[in-house]
Amino acid sequence: MAAPRQFLNDPATLVAQALAGLERANPDIVRWNRDPSFVVRADDDPRPRVSVISGGGSGHEPLHTGFVGRGMLDAAVPGAIFASPSMGQVKAATEAVDRGRGVVHVVKNYTGDIINFGLARDEALEAGIAVETVVVDDDLATDDPTGGGPGRRGTAAVIAVEKICGAAADGGADLESVVALGRRVAAGARSLAIALEACTHPGAPGPSFLLADEEIEFGVGIHGERGIDRRSFAPARELAEMLVRPIAEALELARGDRVIAIVNGLGSTHALELSLMFTETAAVLDAMGVHVARALVGSYVTSLDMAGCSITLVRSAPDLIELWDAPVHTPGLRW
Amino acid sequence: MAAPRQFLNDPATLVAQALAGLERANPDIVRWNRDPSFVVRADDDPRPRVSVISGGGSGHEPLHTGFVGRGMLDAAVPGAIFASPSMGQVKAATEAVDRGRGVVHVVKNYTGDIINFGLARDEALEAGIAVETVVVDDDLATDDPTGGGPGRRGTAAVIAVEKICGAAADGGADLESVVALGRRVAAGARSLAIALEACTHPGAPGPSFLLADEEIEFGVGIHGERGIDRRSFAPARELAEMLVRPIAEALELARGDRVIAIVNGLGSTHALELSLMFTETAAVLDAMGVHVARALVGSYVTSLDMAGCSITLVRSAPDLIELWDAPVHTPGLRW
Repeated sequence: MAAPRQFLNDPATLVAQALAGLERANPDIVRWNRDPSFVVRADDDPRPRVSVISGGGSGHEPLHTGFVGRGMLDAAVPGAIFASPSMGQVKAATEAVDRGRGVVHVVKNYTGDIINFGLARDEALEAGIAVETVVVDDDLATDDPTGGGPGRRGTAAVIAVEKICGAAADGGADLESVVALGRRVAAGARSLAIALEACTHPGAPGPSFLLADEEIEFGVGIHGERGIDRRSFAPARELAEMLVRPIAEALELARGDRVIAIVNGLGSTHALELSLMFTETAAVLDAMGVHVARALVGSYVTSLDMAGCSITLVRSAPDLIELWDAPVHTPGLRW
Repeated sequence: MAAPRQFLNDPATLVAQALAGLERANPDIVRWNRDPSFVVRADDDPRPRVSVISGGGSGHEPLHTGFVGRGMLDAAVPGAIFASPSMGQVKAATEAVDRGRGVVHVVKNYTGDIINFGLARDEALEAGIAVETVVVDDDLATDDPTGGGPGRRGTAAVIAVEKICGAAADGGADLESVVALGRRVAAGARSLAIALEACTHPGAPGPSFLLADEEIEFGVGIHGERGIDRRSFAPARELAEMLVRPIAEALELARGDRVIAIVNGLGSTHALELSLMFTETAAVLDAMGVHVARALVGSYVTSLDMAGCSITLVRSAPDLIELWDAPVHTPGLRW
């Protein structure tokens, strides 16, 4: 057995103990509702306005619980590690944040999340709460041009959707407008990820898959699953090309277009490496004449301790940039 | 050879390419001076006031270059990976940020940094710039009660020193006051770290040391060196006890005392694990009757991709909390 690599008491209590820590370290920003489990804003904001919530499996922190706060999410609903939260959790969170102007569910495109958020929406609608869903499906690795199957997975573009919807809701936009913005951001975003090493589930004896020497995993998701292809390890500039060019093609980016670029660490990749990958990402975009309007570089949508990174490009526009730049005050994202 | 784990073009250009990325991703906050290499604030702040700079080896990001910005550092001087910056770099940065009211050098206690910052101070003094040094030496693992040797190493307490000195300087405090605050914070801070896995230097074939199964490294520093003791792997709550109790003893914390608690990831440790470790840290302090006045949980002072965490406790007081809470706008720390 490999040397232990993780701080842990018991896999069964990890998520709850981590949520307790999140709350205690950020008492002015978030409050954790124990049962059913969801995280809400700790600061009082009684204005009648649209509320925005999200959620999904744990193991991706700071996503989503770390993005609760002024200017972003009103609540986040965490499941167990890599598992969807229950319908009951989502319903309770939806009721808790409703301010009479409707609630937006930002949902990454995974079957369990789609089902459980959908059931919760149905119940909330019956209870008289207006709920609309924005599905985030940016992962180009799971694109099926035939349109069959479950569609593309949702990954790091969800940061942009949550930030921009949260800013719009904070600014007083109505439900229809916030939903339209979220769908527009999601439609204009694509991501690709590579892993240099798989993640290890809490308490598991080893990583979820093994890579041969000098091999990388291309098109990985954020749940420890294998990617779509094994490729040869290469210098960072080649890896950046490998990720950026297909995204730019899928978004049909042309000279003069502007994007928000997110270089996201998958868990154990160092800040130096992410800054390097951003330099190379920007160089690829420079060569295409695509302008980086805004950048976010760091580990925001992780897959436990996976070594790797994802690159997300989001088509930008002046109204989106204004919302991106708006103040945000959450444990995981602040400006 | 193990599978590649790092994004890299060439170890010789890694730091420069990462600094280029830091600057490009945060053009409103930092500007990178290429030669000699140092990072300064990009925003104009022409007020005559004290300036605060720091620096040291790279590989600890976001420290120090990620802490340049309003309310924290005026400049940071990065060396090569785990190597001190040169006297020339420090001198140039000191001259660049001097606003006629003096410059504070915040220096972690390592021989190379002490020498090179000291030489730069001497030259700056000759050039008519008032420079004072605050040495940070919080690492309890290297405490020598006989007072011999190089003294305790500087680790994560440097965040508190930089934040509090930066806030004081931003608020118009004079040189003497900023220096006194920095020394008071450093004197009231101690840290301890454990590693679950060593770090791998960029381009090296493997980690800087190997741990046997079920073994952890107690009292590690942030430069890939071994710690002072090998201990048995244990649940997170026991590891938190192992770190917190000696720190509380060294600081002579008593029931009713208040601290700023920093739970810091050393590189590849996941946010869930750090939140868990904070929960356990707070539990140990609760049992002692020590109050957590403020907390910072995340990877701020890293050692490349080392798996592990450090815990820092800083004696707090109302004036320190006010400065800790003051606005800060840097790539790595914002509120």
